[in-house]
Amino acid sequence: MAASSKPRVLIIGCTGYIGRFITNASIRLGYPTYLLVRPEVASDVYKAAMVIGFKSAGATLGSVTDEKKLVEALKLVDIVICSIAEKNLNDQVKLIQAIKQVGTIKRFLPSEFGMDPGLMDHAIAPGNKVFMDKMKIRRAIEAAQIPHTYVSANCFAGYFLSGIAQFGRFFPPRDTAVVYGEGNAKVIWVDENDVGTFVLKAAEDPRTLNTSVYIRPPKNILSLNEVLQLWEKKIGKTLEKQTLLEEEFMSMISNEKASLPERAALAHFYQIFYRGDLMFEIGPDGRDTGELYPDVSYTTVDAYLDRYL
Amino acid sequence: MAASSKPRVLIIGCTGYIGRFITNASIRLGYPTYLLVRPEVASDVYKAAMVIGFKSAGATLGSVTDEKKLVEALKLVDIVICSIAEKNLNDQVKLIQAIKQVGTIKRFLPSEFGMDPGLMDHAIAPGNKVFMDKMKIRRAIEAAQIPHTYVSANCFAGYFLSGIAQFGRFFPPRDTAVVYGEGNAKVIWVDENDVGTFVLKAAEDPRTLNTSVYIRPPKNILSLNEVLQLWEKKIGKTLEKQTLLEEEFMSMISNEKASLPERAALAHFYQIFYRGDLMFEIGPDGRDTGELYPDVSYTTVDAYLDRYL
Repeated sequence: MAASSKPRVLIIGCTGYIGRFITNASIRLGYPTYLLVRPEVASDVYKAAMVIGFKSAGATLGSVTDEKKLVEALKLVDIVICSIAEKNLNDQVKLIQAIKQVGTIKRFLPSEFGMDPGLMDHAIAPGNKVFMDKMKIRRAIEAAQIPHTYVSANCFAGYFLSGIAQFGRFFPPRDTAVVYGEGNAKVIWVDENDVGTFVLKAAEDPRTLNTSVYIRPPKNILSLNEVLQLWEKKIGKTLEKQTLLEEEFMSMISNEKASLPERAALAHFYQIFYRGDLMFEIGPDGRDTGELYPDVSYTTVDAYLDRYL
Repeated sequence: MAASSKPRVLIIGCTGYIGRFITNASIRLGYPTYLLVRPEVASDVYKAAMVIGFKSAGATLGSVTDEKKLVEALKLVDIVICSIAEKNLNDQVKLIQAIKQVGTIKRFLPSEFGMDPGLMDHAIAPGNKVFMDKMKIRRAIEAAQIPHTYVSANCFAGYFLSGIAQFGRFFPPRDTAVVYGEGNAKVIWVDENDVGTFVLKAAEDPRTLNTSVYIRPPKNILSLNEVLQLWEKKIGKTLEKQTLLEEEFMSMISNEKASLPERAALAHFYQIFYRGDLMFEIGPDGRDTGELYPDVSYTTVDAYLDRYL
């Protein structure tokens, strides 16, 4: 294989929900791609097959068995992207120490890829825990003076757009749709393949060093009402709307019979659909992918929904 | 789209382990492909995405909400392939009734795709339950005089070959390998993509009407010892072997601290690796894919293992 002029990328968390799209993007865009997987992956028939699929597509595999292995892997690469699961976010403390020790990593992207935790001080429980955990990691990265980029990917289409934000449903509604309050808060919907593309673009971009990058495909900044209207036009039918008032939604979040992950997910829905927390003016330390990469094509909400017709 | 001369195939169970490979094969080989999915799939973010991926690749989706819907779907197709999970095998009774009622289905392949349950009267508990369940379905198919084919796919490579039969491991061993008894029983290893190809071939083949079809890629009939030797040659290293005696293995199967699915899986290992139950002379009602389709290329054990180097 000819040496690539592209930076070498290490991905930790390649079998996770968004990790697999980032990994596909890294391979597809021609970055020399290294993957570190936990030994437990060998016991999961689906994840083991996925990892070998990445290898067959060109990635180089390594196993994280100890810190020595981790340091060795870090010496091989320029960029580190971590996409480990929410429950393991704190494992990044060791990774940060190892990156500091190696000293040659040009950019670290910690596991974020959702809402910007730096702007979520006001978030309600139990949805706020993940933001606090991510902020702890940010503080550790900054204390260690590691060059970094924080990527806010907004609403993954497979989770949010597939079911047009009908909680826990991943096909669009055909008869009845729940509307959260007025339904006019602007939401940002992003195809996971595009998340992968923008993450890789941002990871090697000198303009994004030590900034937060917001993935905001201009055509995909649409309210729930706007997306529902688009869908109704496609299916040629007006859906029956059920308005869910803010106080009803709040009581769902505080319902202790629901599981904690479900309540945390509902709390994030609250921030997004009632409070409109995805839309704000980007500050001086932030960058908008719409401005950084105006020529990168992406899947629009309009095109995404066509697959369900 | 131009009308296809190929028979129309309905697949029930497309999101299951082997169902997804059968579905891919059906689409890839150009069969007009119809998929029936349970409404619950809409609540599973991964399965919902998989189903929409099949649709984007050309499949037609339907939802199984009631028997009327099922009968309507059956009227659209020539061949029905069912690959539902072991725990739901009995759901096929309703399907058989509907196929009988419609009367136009040219071939039904029930959910089998493992060892031939018709030859497993001697199977030990708790591995025998699935064989008994499958036999009940066979009797119902035959009583209803539905044209059928039973496909025995032997050992799925992703489950058995990926870890070279090291129980619960899906990457090949690098240091130590467990050998079941002498390790000389002949085993048949089949890439899941090839399972898909042979299932579709058999489903429309007049020679396989009302027979059992055994997927036996000639080069993939190899003992555990032979596969281990092949792997050792590839990695240039002799593995340390740990012989597991039959009585030790039997005590693992009867260990009530293990879960029932794990004990059933161990019992199947016993049939395959200690008793050699995959190899037998095929009777007059059976056909061998090696003879039926000598020109169909398939992934050899040798080639399969290269992905792990």
